[in-house]
Amino acid sequence: MEQENLSVVLHSQGDLRLENRPVPEPGPNEVLLKMHSVGICGSDVHYWQHGRIGDFVLTKPMVLGHEAAGQVVKVGSSVKHLKAGDRVAIEPGVPREMDEFFKNGRYNLSPTIFFCATPPDDGNLCRYYKHSANFCYKLPDNVTFEEGALIEPLSVGIHACRRGGVSLGSTVLICGAGPIGLVCLLVAKAMGASKVVITDLSPERLTMAKECGADFQLTVKRGDGPQQLAKSVEDLLGAQPHITIECTGVESSIQTAIYSTCSGGVVVLVGLGSEMATVPLINAAVREVDIRGVFRYCNTWPMAIAMLASGKVNVKPLVTHRFPLEQAIQAFETTRQGLGIKVMLKCDKNDQNP
Amino acid sequence: MEQENLSVVLHSQGDLRLENRPVPEPGPNEVLLKMHSVGICGSDVHYWQHGRIGDFVLTKPMVLGHEAAGQVVKVGSSVKHLKAGDRVAIEPGVPREMDEFFKNGRYNLSPTIFFCATPPDDGNLCRYYKHSANFCYKLPDNVTFEEGALIEPLSVGIHACRRGGVSLGSTVLICGAGPIGLVCLLVAKAMGASKVVITDLSPERLTMAKECGADFQLTVKRGDGPQQLAKSVEDLLGAQPHITIECTGVESSIQTAIYSTCSGGVVVLVGLGSEMATVPLINAAVREVDIRGVFRYCNTWPMAIAMLASGKVNVKPLVTHRFPLEQAIQAFETTRQGLGIKVMLKCDKNDQNP
Amino acid sequence: MEQENLSVVLHSQGDLRLENRPVPEPGPNEVLLKMHSVGICGSDVHYWQHGRIGDFVLTKPMVLGHEAAGQVVKVGSSVKHLKAGDRVAIEPGVPREMDEFFKNGRYNLSPTIFFCATPPDDGNLCRYYKHSANFCYKLPDNVTFEEGALIEPLSVGIHACRRGGVSLGSTVLICGAGPIGLVCLLVAKAMGASKVVITDLSPERLTMAKECGADFQLTVKRGDGPQQLAKSVEDLLGAQPHITIECTGVESSIQTAIYSTCSGGVVVLVGLGSEMATVPLINAAVREVDIRGVFRYCNTWPMAIAMLASGKVNVKPLVTHRFPLEQAIQAFETTRQGLGIKVMLKCDKNDQNP
Amino acid sequence: MEQENLSVVLHSQGDLRLENRPVPEPGPNEVLLKMHSVGICGSDVHYWQHGRIGDFVLTKPMVLGHEAAGQVVKVGSSVKHLKAGDRVAIEPGVPREMDEFFKNGRYNLSPTIFFCATPPDDGNLCRYYKHSANFCYKLPDNVTFEEGALIEPLSVGIHACRRGGVSLGSTVLICGAGPIGLVCLLVAKAMGASKVVITDLSPERLTMAKECGADFQLTVKRGDGPQQLAKSVEDLLGAQPHITIECTGVESSIQTAIYSTCSGGVVVLVGLGSEMATVPLINAAVREVDIRGVFRYCNTWPMAIAMLASGKVNVKPLVTHRFPLEQAIQAFETTRQGLGIKVMLKCDKNDQNP
Repeated sequence: MEQENLSVVLHSQGDLRLENRPVPEPGPNEVLLKMHSVGICGSDVHYWQHGRIGDFVLTKPMVLGHEAAGQVVKVGSSVKHLKAGDRVAIEPGVPREMDEFFKNGRYNLSPTIFFCATPPDDGNLCRYYKHSANFCYKLPDNVTFEEGALIEPLSVGIHACRRGGVSLGSTVLICGAGPIGLVCLLVAKAMGASKVVITDLSPERLTMAKECGADFQLTVKRGDGPQQLAKSVEDLLGAQPHITIECTGVESSIQTAIYSTCSGGVVVLVGLGSEMATVPLINAAVREVDIRGVFRYCNTWPMAIAMLASGKVNVKPLVTHRFPLEQAIQAFETTRQGLGIKVMLKCDKNDQNP
Repeated sequence: MEQENLSVVLHSQGDLRLENRPVPEPGPNEVLLKMHSVGICGSDVHYWQHGRIGDFVLTKPMVLGHEAAGQVVKVGSSVKHLKAGDRVAIEPGVPREMDEFFKNGRYNLSPTIFFCATPPDDGNLCRYYKHSANFCYKLPDNVTFEEGALIEPLSVGIHACRRGGVSLGSTVLICGAGPIGLVCLLVAKAMGASKVVITDLSPERLTMAKECGADFQLTVKRGDGPQQLAKSVEDLLGAQPHITIECTGVESSIQTAIYSTCSGGVVVLVGLGSEMATVPLINAAVREVDIRGVFRYCNTWPMAIAMLASGKVNVKPLVTHRFPLEQAIQAFETTRQGLGIKVMLKCDKNDQNP
Repeated sequence: MEQENLSVVLHSQGDLRLENRPVPEPGPNEVLLKMHSVGICGSDVHYWQHGRIGDFVLTKPMVLGHEAAGQVVKVGSSVKHLKAGDRVAIEPGVPREMDEFFKNGRYNLSPTIFFCATPPDDGNLCRYYKHSANFCYKLPDNVTFEEGALIEPLSVGIHACRRGGVSLGSTVLICGAGPIGLVCLLVAKAMGASKVVITDLSPERLTMAKECGADFQLTVKRGDGPQQLAKSVEDLLGAQPHITIECTGVESSIQTAIYSTCSGGVVVLVGLGSEMATVPLINAAVREVDIRGVFRYCNTWPMAIAMLASGKVNVKPLVTHRFPLEQAIQAFETTRQGLGIKVMLKCDKNDQNP
Repeated sequence: MEQENLSVVLHSQGDLRLENRPVPEPGPNEVLLKMHSVGICGSDVHYWQHGRIGDFVLTKPMVLGHEAAGQVVKVGSSVKHLKAGDRVAIEPGVPREMDEFFKNGRYNLSPTIFFCATPPDDGNLCRYYKHSANFCYKLPDNVTFEEGALIEPLSVGIHACRRGGVSLGSTVLICGAGPIGLVCLLVAKAMGASKVVITDLSPERLTMAKECGADFQLTVKRGDGPQQLAKSVEDLLGAQPHITIECTGVESSIQTAIYSTCSGGVVVLVGLGSEMATVPLINAAVREVDIRGVFRYCNTWPMAIAMLASGKVNVKPLVTHRFPLEQAIQAFETTRQGLGIKVMLKCDKNDQNP
């Protein structure tokens, strides 16, 4: 095996480097992967620009990247369900303990979970990476590596829609038409939502949302009142939406989400803003509008693969830029500038296909 | 208003007549409807042929028909949400009492519920029919009367899929490719099922199922062993299905349903067979495969209309035959012979369009 | 039947009068009740003192009272399940329309619901009162009228605990030890909660809570920091509570509720404060702590009666004061001053027993 | 540490021996336990008498016992939450793989799970035993070792009642008053059931059930018709029970369970009978009575400990016999003869207290 393992390492705030690291050796329950496609997430850029997200603070160099797919090159001694040559998508969160959260099926809430590219855990934006075999999922032949990598953002949409209870005939408001808003849109439609309204400040993003299947687009202007926006949403749908998925984290948008949602409905908080928010909590409470957050996701990879394999969801249009791993800095700069939707890094020198 | 009210009346087992009945007068919470399209259901034919279904026994003449849509011609004094001219789909079950079932949102289980064409309650296979306004649902302009009438069988599929918990990425086995199997198929796909296997004795029905979106068809032969069929299903899907929807009522098929379903999954019993059935109940129990029946449906019309209006489900191909109301006997004969899928009776002399 | 119908009528803010009103005549689905025991609720006092609660504004004289039990003296022509002489508890909310909320089992959210003593609907603090028979529930012989009247506040506790998902082994924090905090406590213990912490500013109320079964009492002082209080709760329980039921409506207490609750847990908002609240919404969101409000209750009377009849819950100690109906003004003054827990008005001149 | 490790080993059908085995060495994530109290389960006796249960066949000598509590004497290198001296209850099922069942919180269904005293996995009826530290739960000071051992059968009751949805005000029928019927009874009452009817052939068992809190006892005679028994249950409760927990596995009793349960209710199958059962499946289906099995349990130890520590459930009366480990054969013989309820083996020579 070649010894080169070019990796995208964040040394400290603003100090992003491409450097060679040793090829790791998989443990008994791990597999060694030759990375193929890794998407850049807003959180990767945020660590680069700010050195932290909330309580997660970079204190030592860390490999970035957690939206990833690659090929198995070596399996640990106890691994049975994978073999060298298998193409896999990587779930970046791996519980370290069989604690109560894990036992109850909500392992994303386990406080000691390993998570790629969340300090201090290394990510997989590199040539070779080892991972728990139980959190690598074999891709069918008709699912590309890039689709495999996109299962990570798609999982945010799946988890959000499941937490919101999207089902047959649901009407849905999605606040924000960035990458996460778009995956929520794709998933909501696949789960049977009859009508989806999506909002954004940017008409370009809304055009993309329309192409992804949004039934109505609502352009928001800074200063629009939340109750006025709620009225516009109701006018578009003919009724208040059952479920609102808030993907911006902006306080006024959270207010809009609450005012918009029908009695007995659900607001899902996906976007993250400032610690304290001033919101019409009583309005939600007396109409029994539940407010539910999401923290990453759990139990999404198998169903995401099933959806992609069966063609129920098409994520391919989300990839608007591709760079070879060697041009990672340029790729990060592209994401930082908000160009396109999803920037994909191609880690395999011999195969830069989707 | 014209006084003629031609009606399809079952007088006793085998004695089906076309006769004129008085045009009813709507009560304060009712609407009078000019009927447009009414589908013939297997249960209508069963009452005709046998005079009873289980404990429901025909003891006096009864108008048949419960898959129906029409136009409001008169509204009761307390009705606010409908007006003359509105096109509506009719939910045939109307609770008579605000009992605990109704208060808990499961009004289909209310023992005193009114139900069209279940003795002794008259159905709506006639020119003019009155119904509770709260159980008439306005159709959008882009949903036809026939689609409105098909909401009734579609509701069986919705209720069955909801009871089964069909969701994003579910794999589903449907036993039986008759009209009910087909609507279950349509709904399962609309709810996000990734793969659906459907079984039947008839290759013709399976061909129709394929056109409706089935991923796999399995032709069953009389005498096939349930465990052998379960193995064939697993081979087709690559794993046992999460949910099985049994639409035949045949004992061996219920056995197949149990053996086929994955641990922790659900078998939904839609088809009705003989009172006692011999089944591998322990096999289901120790694998925590839940067995859930359905009785008609509840809370399905609004979401069905949302699905039809948004184009999420296409029921139009289900209508294979149409007859004017005057030829009702011939239409019933067609259904009795098992020809086609759904026979539609056209009740409005001036508008025989879909 | 005697013609006197002494009633407690609120004419306008601050203008509470005892006056005689006609004895009503029950409609076909109604019963006429001779009222026996009616509790005074904080909302009754609030209407008296302020003439409004939120958007509900008194615009014409209204009979107060909605925590009530009485005896059937006359039944409407269609009523089958009740007869003269039956002792009943009254559910004050009666849906006027079979709308989607009602059909789905959440009739408390129906916007057109009738509700006793919410403007403009009259309550039942009077001698004779008519009510929908379907929302009158027969009391077993071993349940007193006062227990029947207390089902109303108890229902708030049942609905809150159900919305919170209290179950076997749950640990619960209840913020506020007023009447509603106490019924939440009683219900939480009856549902299997293993440990309940209750907080209040008043040591006297906490002493009462201890007698009602609270495992831990925490005296709050104005100015205590929410995170510090959350730490105290965790220290008492040995872990963060699964569920917090917030009964004060005070902003800092809502903050405490969020910080206190364990990841994956639930905060139930029962207390109502100002329209906008500043809260650590992100803290809740990223730990998937759901925030759920309650609006009154639905489907609680039958189970409340079952609990009282079986002795699972003892609400009798909640009644600390009793007044004959003639002394209603004095009774309201007692409640206004915050004396005791529950003040009960005795409406039957010939039977002032519990 | 002493080297003696007296163990109760089943060599083959009918061949139960007391023999010395090596003291095991705990792995990194394991703890070595000095066993204190181990209950004898019907399944232990069944393996002894028949050498198999269903597909689980004894093919080599196996230590029996899985209802157990002991004291930590040594911890593996990675164990953090336990230390020598801790008193713990042992959950006998330990998933071997992080498969989809485990990730979804239903690890009891994992096909590769380790389970004490299910061939080929050794149980803990011995002096020294090692176990996954994550499946050992620290006992509070006020919970005895025997209570800790009884968490295992109690967990069957918890899982059954949770699967059945027992909640506040539920009415419950329990078929069979053996040890499992009794723990279901205890748990149902702790979860808020208002009334429980329990049936059995044996008046002595029903007397014990009455002492454990059953509201009604119904003595069944061989040959009683299922529909007649269902009528008797309805007469006792005044209505059909919401939930039936079937603990006998006898075909006629399963029939009784179905006929007895109210529409929209649940039958939980706990008892195991023959592979095929003839039951009124249609009766269940058209009344939407769900049939749900249980396989062991999951996620029950923490809540069981919380219940025992708070005194919500009293399992102590279930222990009717105690034997020192040296008299294990005699203890097994006592269980085989059906004497008493629970026979407890005392494994610690120096501490034979409860």
